[in-house]
Amino acid sequence: MEVLSQSVIQHILDEFSFVADIERSFIHYSKNEAVIPPVGELLMEKGETHIKYGYVKHQPYFVIKVASGFYDNPKLGLSSSQGLVLLFSQQTGEPVAFLQDGGILTNYRTACAGAIAAKYLAPARIDNIGIMGSGIQAQLQASMIAAETGCKNIRLWGRNAESALKCVNLLRASGLNATYCESVNELAEHSQIIVTTTPSEEPILKASHLSGTTLIIAVGADTAEKQELETGILRHARLVTDSRSQAAQRGELSHLIKTLPEASERTAALSQIAELGEIIANAQSKGHPLDHTHNGQFEGTTVVDLTGVATQDLAIAQAVLEKWQATTGPGY
Amino acid sequence: MEVLSQSVIQHILDEFSFVADIERSFIHYSKNEAVIPPVGELLMEKGETHIKYGYVKHQPYFVIKVASGFYDNPKLGLSSSQGLVLLFSQQTGEPVAFLQDGGILTNYRTACAGAIAAKYLAPARIDNIGIMGSGIQAQLQASMIAAETGCKNIRLWGRNAESALKCVNLLRASGLNATYCESVNELAEHSQIIVTTTPSEEPILKASHLSGTTLIIAVGADTAEKQELETGILRHARLVTDSRSQAAQRGELSHLIKTLPEASERTAALSQIAELGEIIANAQSKGHPLDHTHNGQFEGTTVVDLTGVATQDLAIAQAVLEKWQATTGPGY
Repeated sequence: MEVLSQSVIQHILDEFSFVADIERSFIHYSKNEAVIPPVGELLMEKGETHIKYGYVKHQPYFVIKVASGFYDNPKLGLSSSQGLVLLFSQQTGEPVAFLQDGGILTNYRTACAGAIAAKYLAPARIDNIGIMGSGIQAQLQASMIAAETGCKNIRLWGRNAESALKCVNLLRASGLNATYCESVNELAEHSQIIVTTTPSEEPILKASHLSGTTLIIAVGADTAEKQELETGILRHARLVTDSRSQAAQRGELSHLIKTLPEASERTAALSQIAELGEIIANAQSKGHPLDHTHNGQFEGTTVVDLTGVATQDLAIAQAVLEKWQATTGPGY
Repeated sequence: MEVLSQSVIQHILDEFSFVADIERSFIHYSKNEAVIPPVGELLMEKGETHIKYGYVKHQPYFVIKVASGFYDNPKLGLSSSQGLVLLFSQQTGEPVAFLQDGGILTNYRTACAGAIAAKYLAPARIDNIGIMGSGIQAQLQASMIAAETGCKNIRLWGRNAESALKCVNLLRASGLNATYCESVNELAEHSQIIVTTTPSEEPILKASHLSGTTLIIAVGADTAEKQELETGILRHARLVTDSRSQAAQRGELSHLIKTLPEASERTAALSQIAELGEIIANAQSKGHPLDHTHNGQFEGTTVVDLTGVATQDLAIAQAVLEKWQATTGPGY
C-alpha cells in the first residue's frame, strides 16, 4: 500500500491542475456510471465527520473518504478540517493507497468544482467575484475561480471581520485585487459570481441582496441542517447541483425540496434541477471551446449547489496517486 | 498517528484475551451509550465491502472499520478477508491509529462474540460443538468456544469437503478433537452448540436437523441477501442478536421480520428479540459467577444472530492499541 503524506499531496496539488479529472468525475456520476451510496455521517459533541464512498464501474479503485469539521480546533492550533482518503482495489478489496491529506484533497476538489461551475455557467462579464466566508475554502475558491475566469477582483465578507480581513490580506499577497466588504449587500451588489463557503445554519444571502445576472456557487452547506441561501432565492433561479439524489437530502436545495408536501411535487421539482455533469457533457459534445462564453445569454440567477460526491474524491485521489507514481523521486 | 501492521496486531491478539472488552462493548450498545449509524455497503463485481462506524459517548475515539469479502482472492493467493480499522479523536477529529489488520480484527471480534454467546447462553451439558463452514471464522469459533466452554469435541461440516478436511486437520493440530461430518444432519444430531459461518444465500441448517436443546450461533449472514438458517427454525426459538436495529435489516432475523406484512407486527416481533448486551448486563448485575451454568434450565432452541456492530470494532481496536502503547518495545 502506498502512503502519501499531507506535504507530498500539497506539493502535487500545487504543481498540477486536476480540473479535467474532476470534470470527468461529474460526467461519470451524471451518466450513472458510478455507484455512490448515501453519505455516512457522525455527529459528535465537538464536530462532525462525513464518510463518502463509492466507485466508477470498470475502473481500478473504490474510494472511502473521511472528512471532518471540528470548529474549535483552531483554538488548539489545529486545522478545523481533518480527514484522509483510502483507495482500494475493485478486483481484490486490498487497500492500494492511504492519502493522509488532513482534508486538503476535499478542500481542493470542492474549490475545483466551484471553478468548473464558473467555467460553464458564469455570466459573460464578470467585474467582481464575491466570496462569503474567510476560511480555507474562501481562499481556494477565490484563487481557482479567478484563475478560471481571468477576473482578479475579489470582494470578501465574513461573519467574523477579523478573519475576513486576514483572508483578504492572504488573497492580496497572492496577487489578487481583494477588498473587504462590511456587509453582504456591499459584496453582492457588485459581484456577478458569489460563492458561499460558511457552515452557517441561518441564511446569510437573501433575495433582496441580488440584482442583475448572478451565478451563486453554494459550497458551505453539506448537511441537512446547514443553510446559507434564503429559500426565496431558489424559487426563481436556474438550479444546478452535483447530485440530484444528494440535493434532496442535504445542502441548499434540500430546504426547497422539503417545503413541498407531496412526494410527486418533490420528484417534479428535483427533475427540474440540472446536474453539473450533464451540463459539462452537453457542452463538450457540442464541441464548444471550453471557455465560459458558451453559457450564452442566460439572464437571471443561477444557483449551483455543491454538496460533494464521492466520485470527486475518487477522481482527485486517483489522479494525485498517479502523478505521485509517475514522478516519485527527487522533489517528493 | 500510530500505525499497527497486521503482524503486530496478530501478535497482540495471540498474547492477550479481549473477551472483557468485547463484553463491555455489547453492554454500551444495548444501554444506548453508543451512536452507530446504519452500516455502509458497497457491492462490486468481485466482492463486497462493509463500512461500520460510530462511537461510545464520553470515550476518547470514534471508529471507522472497513471489512471486505472478495471470494475469488484465494485463487490469487490472497485472503478473501480484507480490511482496515481507523481510530479518530472525538475531541479533534484527528486520526489517532491506523490498524492495517487485513480483516483479522473483524475475524477475532466476531469469534469472540460467538464465545461470549456460548458463555451466557449455552446448555449446561455440551458434548460437541458443531461448526458449519471451513474458513478462518470456522477455525476461530471452534477454538474460542472450545476455550470458553471447556468442550474440545468439534464436529465440522463444510460446503466444500476438501476445505472442510483441511480445517479439521488444522483444528486437530491445535489440540482439539475435531471430526469431519459428511452431512449437516451428522453434525447437528450430536451438537449442543452449532455455529454457522458460511456466506451462503440458501438456508443450510434446517429445522428438521435439530433435536434437543441447542444453541445456534449464526455469524455468516451479515447482509440482507445471505441466509444460513431455515426461517422455520426462528419461529420457535428464543431469539438473541447483537443489535435489534441491524437485525431488522440484515442477517438471519431480517428474513423472519421481512415476512411480516404490517409495520406493527414487525415492531412487535423485534421487541421479542433480546440483545446480547442486555443478557450480559443482566447476568453481571445478578453477581453470578461468569460461567455458562447461569443459563439455567432453558430448553429448546436458542438462536444468536450476530451481524456485527461497530462498537465491537471500536472495542477491539482500542484495546489492541492500548496494549501496543503499553508494551511497545522488545517483541513488537
